[in-house]
Amino acid sequence: MEDLKKYVEQNKDRFLSELFELIRIPSVSAKEAHKDDMYRAAQWIADKLMADGADKAEVYKTDGHPVVYGEKIIDPKLPTVLVYGHYDVQPAEPLDLWKSPAFEPEVRDGKIYARGADDDKGQAYMHFKAFEYMVKKGQLPCNVKFMIEGEEEIGSPSLGKFCEANKELLASDVILVSDTSMIGPDIPSITTGLRGLTYVEVEVTGPNRDLHSGLYGGAVDNPVNVLAKMIGSLTDADGKITVKGFYDDVEDLSPAEREEMARAPFNLEAYKKEIDVAEVNGEKGYSTMERTGIRPSLDVNGIWGGYTDKGAKTILPSKAYAKISMRLVPHQDSKKIAELFKAHFESIAPKTVKVKVDFLHGGEGYVSPTDTIEYQAASKAYETTYGKKPIPVRSGGSIPIISLFEKVLGVKSILMGFGLESDAIHSPNENYPLGQFYKGIETIPYFYKYYAEMKK
Amino acid sequence: MEDLKKYVEQNKDRFLSELFELIRIPSVSAKEAHKDDMYRAAQWIADKLMADGADKAEVYKTDGHPVVYGEKIIDPKLPTVLVYGHYDVQPAEPLDLWKSPAFEPEVRDGKIYARGADDDKGQAYMHFKAFEYMVKKGQLPCNVKFMIEGEEEIGSPSLGKFCEANKELLASDVILVSDTSMIGPDIPSITTGLRGLTYVEVEVTGPNRDLHSGLYGGAVDNPVNVLAKMIGSLTDADGKITVKGFYDDVEDLSPAEREEMARAPFNLEAYKKEIDVAEVNGEKGYSTMERTGIRPSLDVNGIWGGYTDKGAKTILPSKAYAKISMRLVPHQDSKKIAELFKAHFESIAPKTVKVKVDFLHGGEGYVSPTDTIEYQAASKAYETTYGKKPIPVRSGGSIPIISLFEKVLGVKSILMGFGLESDAIHSPNENYPLGQFYKGIETIPYFYKYYAEMKK
Repeated sequence: MEDLKKYVEQNKDRFLSELFELIRIPSVSAKEAHKDDMYRAAQWIADKLMADGADKAEVYKTDGHPVVYGEKIIDPKLPTVLVYGHYDVQPAEPLDLWKSPAFEPEVRDGKIYARGADDDKGQAYMHFKAFEYMVKKGQLPCNVKFMIEGEEEIGSPSLGKFCEANKELLASDVILVSDTSMIGPDIPSITTGLRGLTYVEVEVTGPNRDLHSGLYGGAVDNPVNVLAKMIGSLTDADGKITVKGFYDDVEDLSPAEREEMARAPFNLEAYKKEIDVAEVNGEKGYSTMERTGIRPSLDVNGIWGGYTDKGAKTILPSKAYAKISMRLVPHQDSKKIAELFKAHFESIAPKTVKVKVDFLHGGEGYVSPTDTIEYQAASKAYETTYGKKPIPVRSGGSIPIISLFEKVLGVKSILMGFGLESDAIHSPNENYPLGQFYKGIETIPYFYKYYAEMKK
Repeated sequence: MEDLKKYVEQNKDRFLSELFELIRIPSVSAKEAHKDDMYRAAQWIADKLMADGADKAEVYKTDGHPVVYGEKIIDPKLPTVLVYGHYDVQPAEPLDLWKSPAFEPEVRDGKIYARGADDDKGQAYMHFKAFEYMVKKGQLPCNVKFMIEGEEEIGSPSLGKFCEANKELLASDVILVSDTSMIGPDIPSITTGLRGLTYVEVEVTGPNRDLHSGLYGGAVDNPVNVLAKMIGSLTDADGKITVKGFYDDVEDLSPAEREEMARAPFNLEAYKKEIDVAEVNGEKGYSTMERTGIRPSLDVNGIWGGYTDKGAKTILPSKAYAKISMRLVPHQDSKKIAELFKAHFESIAPKTVKVKVDFLHGGEGYVSPTDTIEYQAASKAYETTYGKKPIPVRSGGSIPIISLFEKVLGVKSILMGFGLESDAIHSPNENYPLGQFYKGIETIPYFYKYYAEMKK
């Protein structure tokens, strides 16, 4: 593979302009209005897989947004790698905070700025170009299958069914995913743990209409004040989540495991500076890395109610809403947590209001062992291109589908992420450094190479 | 005045179509976009005053929206009544909850539905038509001045200056205002107390951008969760406001005064049913009427932060906002309360966030005695048209300018309101019963008659 670096160098402008084509399709899975864009993006991907060397590539309809499946089977006796990625992206709002339009990719200071630049269009597309290289140069040592879905950002509601229905088609030895980040551009790492997720929306209704806050204020419970009190009570002074039964299934790590985790480089001052907060805060008794890596959390993702426009409107609102998500650790069941949350939230509501709790989506956490061939092959691949061994880390993020793959397909996943924490995924000005994009394309073929060798 | 009832009956369609013309001008003072509408409404009012018999009527520019002044001086030796009203209205949002468009008035079931139908276009316009009658029929026993402003709904920021600069022009014996409500269509009442108001907007900033709730959730304080906790702590379990020093100037009424107040008819079951709440709630130890009449309150008028669109976006928001207003009782100073709130709010903010408190507007409470000629004239006027003596009541609402009139012009106001609590002022589907509108026009001339007689 001595020509790999050169191949990437010679084709880098084309790689970028291809990726930009994909980014320009605003495939926001959460919004009805983008339904057609989802099909456009899926078809673009299928066409590209064929162009890059697949034997076949098809757009599969689902109850939601389509899944693209493609494959190149060179020899049934060789190991098979299933590449998973997603072409859907998070909504771009708030739009006014973007320095350049979210769906018009732009390179500034060596980074691609756009929604999906990293998550997951940029990262998924590295696999296409690594595949292109291996096919074109006769360096493909494994069979390859691609499953690129369009609902990851809304909890992959259709993919479970798709996997159940296509077990044979998707049969593989390992699932390879680039949808996570590494510690720093010079500090490679492999994600060995992901948190689960339970996402709910709550509605609190007080009076049947907005009331005049003078005529009624003080005598009628205000649903915004009530919701604030309820949310405030969901965590206690120690940062513990108060939902009854919430911690029942949380696994406490051994002191040895926690010590091992603490070895990953982390600079609290740099962390605080990067996001501009004077102090961090979280569950008492745990470090910042532990709070996101091995402990669950509860965040309000959005809140609204009453008059939110300019000026002063004196009302006692009729309704208040919040979107609340909980990140879960392995063994916590996302559906059970949703039930516990609903029961708890209803139990703390005063009789002056009505509450409604809707479960929007969720998924389970995941832990991957480091003593497997798959992990060792990935580790060696990073070592080859970065010159140092990657650190195994537990990420706070969620890719709910990963635990589902294990359950339905019986296959473990390897999370070879090339994102950086500073990529601002899910935020305005999402970006992906060009260096990460190209280095990813260079690293992936080595995984195939070492994996095939180790499997022999 | 035996022909008054007949005059109203004969002209009622015209009165209504004139009022509709005024309502159709969307004079929303809180919104920049309606600046021209404010001038249009002011000019319409000045023209109408001239048509109705004023000697002069002019639109006065201010630093904000204009004030309309008009007068008819028949004899300097006669008492002078200054009519105050406002042509500005509250924003109409949320628009989708209106059954008919907010600025296209419509009569349904005997009620005018539109923003401003009651507050205060409908109520102010009764004075124009009562004036028209008295002029046309030679029944005007007092000099009359009109001061109709365009900033009441945003706290009358320019009217104090206008009054200071025009003391002589505005010299009068009594100020007459219809901008309050009566207990029921058959239960006349006169408002003898108003609450003050302090309105603030708060901003809580956490990280410098929206963060991925998986990668950061649990380790970085979420400004929405923080704001919820802060708002939740602003009232305690007894419904007392926890802002330090908040109750220092609150006057406790004597048991005798509270007994007197308790005589006003009030049906808690009907009250709860009308707004569809299972239970009321407020400061411990006080009745519902007391909670709005003689006790201060704190309400979130609006809250927003993070992702509020459809679907699930997994972010830890950078910012959270709330509009918070406090209704005050006489002796509480709105500026002092604003300072106390700011100091308290800043003191309870954790170091993980930055907070900003902006004072939007405010005004003082007001109490009017019932043993004055002014009150007695108003009382007799209601008695004449309704057949029963009106009940003096303390309203929970605020007309901050009333206490300012007393301070700057040295004149007491009489609050002859004809609104009903069911008029949904400040809410979608604001309405004003035709019966109240016409009965108001019939009642007002009697005030002038009795007032002139009593002043002799």
